[in-house]
Amino acid sequence: MKLYEQFSTEIKDQIEHGYYQPGQKLPSIRDMSTTRGVSISTVQEAYHLLEDTGMVISKPKSGYYVQQQQNTDLLPDISRPEQKPVDVAHWDEVLTLTTTESHHNFVAFGGGAPDITLKTLKPLQRIHAELSRQQPRCLFENAKGNGLEELREQIVRLMQNSGCFLHPDDIVITTGCQEALSLSLKAISKPGDIIAIDSPSFYGSMQAIQSNGLKVIEIPTHPETGISMTALELALEQWPIKAIQLIPTSNNPLGYIMPEKNKRKLLALAERYDFAIIEDDIFGDLVYQTPRPKSIKSFDTEGRVLMCSSFSKTVAPGLRIGWVAAGRYGELLTHLKFITSLGSTALPQLALAKFIQQGYFEKHLRTARTQYQRGRDCMIHWVQQYFPEGTKMTYPQGGVGLWVELPGDIDTLELNKELLKYDTAIAPGTLFSASDKYRNCLRLNYATVPNDRIKAAVKTIGEQASLMLKK
Amino acid sequence: MKLYEQFSTEIKDQIEHGYYQPGQKLPSIRDMSTTRGVSISTVQEAYHLLEDTGMVISKPKSGYYVQQQQNTDLLPDISRPEQKPVDVAHWDEVLTLTTTESHHNFVAFGGGAPDITLKTLKPLQRIHAELSRQQPRCLFENAKGNGLEELREQIVRLMQNSGCFLHPDDIVITTGCQEALSLSLKAISKPGDIIAIDSPSFYGSMQAIQSNGLKVIEIPTHPETGISMTALELALEQWPIKAIQLIPTSNNPLGYIMPEKNKRKLLALAERYDFAIIEDDIFGDLVYQTPRPKSIKSFDTEGRVLMCSSFSKTVAPGLRIGWVAAGRYGELLTHLKFITSLGSTALPQLALAKFIQQGYFEKHLRTARTQYQRGRDCMIHWVQQYFPEGTKMTYPQGGVGLWVELPGDIDTLELNKELLKYDTAIAPGTLFSASDKYRNCLRLNYATVPNDRIKAAVKTIGEQASLMLKK
Ligand SMILES: Cc1ncc(COP(=O)(O)O)c(C=O)c1O
Ligand SMILES: Cc1ncc(COP(=O)(O)O)c(C=O)c1O
Repeated sequence: MKLYEQFSTEIKDQIEHGYYQPGQKLPSIRDMSTTRGVSISTVQEAYHLLEDTGMVISKPKSGYYVQQQQNTDLLPDISRPEQKPVDVAHWDEVLTLTTTESHHNFVAFGGGAPDITLKTLKPLQRIHAELSRQQPRCLFENAKGNGLEELREQIVRLMQNSGCFLHPDDIVITTGCQEALSLSLKAISKPGDIIAIDSPSFYGSMQAIQSNGLKVIEIPTHPETGISMTALELALEQWPIKAIQLIPTSNNPLGYIMPEKNKRKLLALAERYDFAIIEDDIFGDLVYQTPRPKSIKSFDTEGRVLMCSSFSKTVAPGLRIGWVAAGRYGELLTHLKFITSLGSTALPQLALAKFIQQGYFEKHLRTARTQYQRGRDCMIHWVQQYFPEGTKMTYPQGGVGLWVELPGDIDTLELNKELLKYDTAIAPGTLFSASDKYRNCLRLNYATVPNDRIKAAVKTIGEQASLMLKK
Repeated sequence: MKLYEQFSTEIKDQIEHGYYQPGQKLPSIRDMSTTRGVSISTVQEAYHLLEDTGMVISKPKSGYYVQQQQNTDLLPDISRPEQKPVDVAHWDEVLTLTTTESHHNFVAFGGGAPDITLKTLKPLQRIHAELSRQQPRCLFENAKGNGLEELREQIVRLMQNSGCFLHPDDIVITTGCQEALSLSLKAISKPGDIIAIDSPSFYGSMQAIQSNGLKVIEIPTHPETGISMTALELALEQWPIKAIQLIPTSNNPLGYIMPEKNKRKLLALAERYDFAIIEDDIFGDLVYQTPRPKSIKSFDTEGRVLMCSSFSKTVAPGLRIGWVAAGRYGELLTHLKFITSLGSTALPQLALAKFIQQGYFEKHLRTARTQYQRGRDCMIHWVQQYFPEGTKMTYPQGGVGLWVELPGDIDTLELNKELLKYDTAIAPGTLFSASDKYRNCLRLNYATVPNDRIKAAVKTIGEQASLMLKK
């Protein structure tokens, strides 16, 4: 065994025994070399080896960090929803979850919000305040039609990162991604139609499907690669599916990235079976790896993909600024937007356009991604530590949420009620199912900078879950 | 004849001969008394008499003004739409009208916007800028559920002016009145249902009906009193009408106020035939008379009325803040709002709440109402002067739009195209019909302070109309 191999095994042992914690920075190469009395190059090669095996990750200009090791035994199985069209359930639960007023001391793991206290958002606040003072017309005038041109230009520029080369006129600004999804559904379907979705899937979009009088068919979904292409094809053979709606890049709630070859395959199927694709890319720019993966939209030559997104996760949900690039449905979308809410406030659109144009957005994104990745590692660590044996969980590649599968028949709706007593909330798994599955699952938000309060709350969740398990 | 009667006849003559112009202020009582050599009390009583006969109006703390005399011969007839359920037409025209980019020198009579340059809006701008600097969370946080409590409290307070006594929890904040209407329709109907509407009616709400897969039946509507109750009853006998949607107070485009007894009658019918009422009150606070008329909602004891409104006309359309008080459909509305666009930006809601709470809103409203009333009088005057003989027009009791009926078979869609050459635009009447009626009608916006440029543009419209008449 070479010296650097020997040395790397040593560090590996130390990591496994908890001497270096997941997410922790390893000593710099120079420090390590001095303290351990080995050469700089030995440390370098040892670190490289650890990186290759996924034990540590290197961050440019920062150093080496202990990677959160994901044991694949811990991954949930591929989901097995019933493969026939159903009506979406859970109206009441969703309403309760999303409207429950939480007081200040609440530890809210249930939502999907990003960290809006990050300093890198300050310039946006400044720009907005300036505009607010200097250009009151922006506040009073309604941005009709597709929305503010300045912002559409910036969006088009950003979308190049996902391989899309569009014109500002291809974009329709919406009131968040939710309106984008809701209008897209309206554009491609009529009541009674069947929409295929990944499963588990974001409850908001499922509810939009329901409220448009549509049925869903849930496609089995793997926690690392997304919908099963085989299962989808089977469903397409059997049912007149009008569209598939999915969150392929940094999925909510599973955190996977659909492989590029599946994205291409999906488009080929769309052509063959003549259906539309509603691609929810809201977390696409929050994938931890760079450059970010290509979107399905980027491979679309026929205008079949309606790509929906927003700044709710990358910047702040309160802006209520989203967009859709609707391909062949573009004009219809403009019209539907008009009919649904007439237009959108110009001021925050202009502020955001400047924020992006002046480079602040990308800087903020880098900061946020790093924080969320660290948040993920801590959260996984804590869940492993505090949750009952047999707990499974995903290994998110982006976004702000961890999907956890509890052992036994713990009902997370019940667990959530119990947790209220401890001023803590989770998102019960069943919300992410159209048909009452995932009762033993939950989603945890890890956007906030990890701290002891959060740790304690995770511990409480684990303890309560264990108690329910014993009953 | 008493002296004051004699004196009042004198002034009446002078008004009729154009010595005093419509909208002009009469000399103060003191001045009049001095210059004409009659006693103060004679002038006072003469003015009162003129006021009683509708020749002049008194404005508190300001004086007496010449009323625009509306010759009832000039009023359009009651509308006669086909009385059977139809699909709404005119998608393309509406889209074109509302998305046509107009350059700076354009005289746009086509839109429904209020005057957003009024000085009384300045405090709102200031408050908004301050909040923007001091409370960035408001910009980044999403006001979920029903919307910001502070604003809902103010709305409830304002609604007392129309006789409604509600709780803030009865209100759902929406992205403008358009979303309020669109969600209300969704709440009370399913595709294929029939909705009754006044006719002519606002194109935005008709398009929302269309996009929800509903049919409309247009009810004959009188330019002074609104829908014919007899015609409505006949329609209710014949068709399974799910709801009636109307703009009863300061109607768009006709400007009438539906008499209180008809409002009560409508509720009685709703009970008898079991339908819902979608009351669009967006112009309700812009009625020129004070106190403003009561809303249908104020008489509603069964929760059948979904009252939709917004600050788009009373303050500024760019705020995109509206609301719905949905009665028995309240919870459903909250849910539909969530599904459609998740929530709304908190910052402008908070700014608006403070603007209202500090008394600025009501002050602004007074200024705006006075300006629009004057705008109406001028516009009527100019149309009478410049439009071809046989032109008819409404006598709006509130709002910002005059409805004009041209003689002969002038097609106002064509007229509008012609006017583009003169950098002028109108709203063609046919947009306000579900079934291609009102081709010879148009709506003119008079929100801006009357000036020579506007006068010249009205003249151009008249000239072009006359030219088309001769062809
Ligand atoms: C996957 C996904 N799509 C859409 C939305 C809606 O986003 P917005 O707040 O932009 O309407 C969310 C919000 O949580 C989401 O998680
Ligand atoms: C009668 C009527 N209702 C609703 C609307 C839509 O208003 P908002 O801009 O608040 O969505 C308008 C706008 O012109 C209108 O005239």
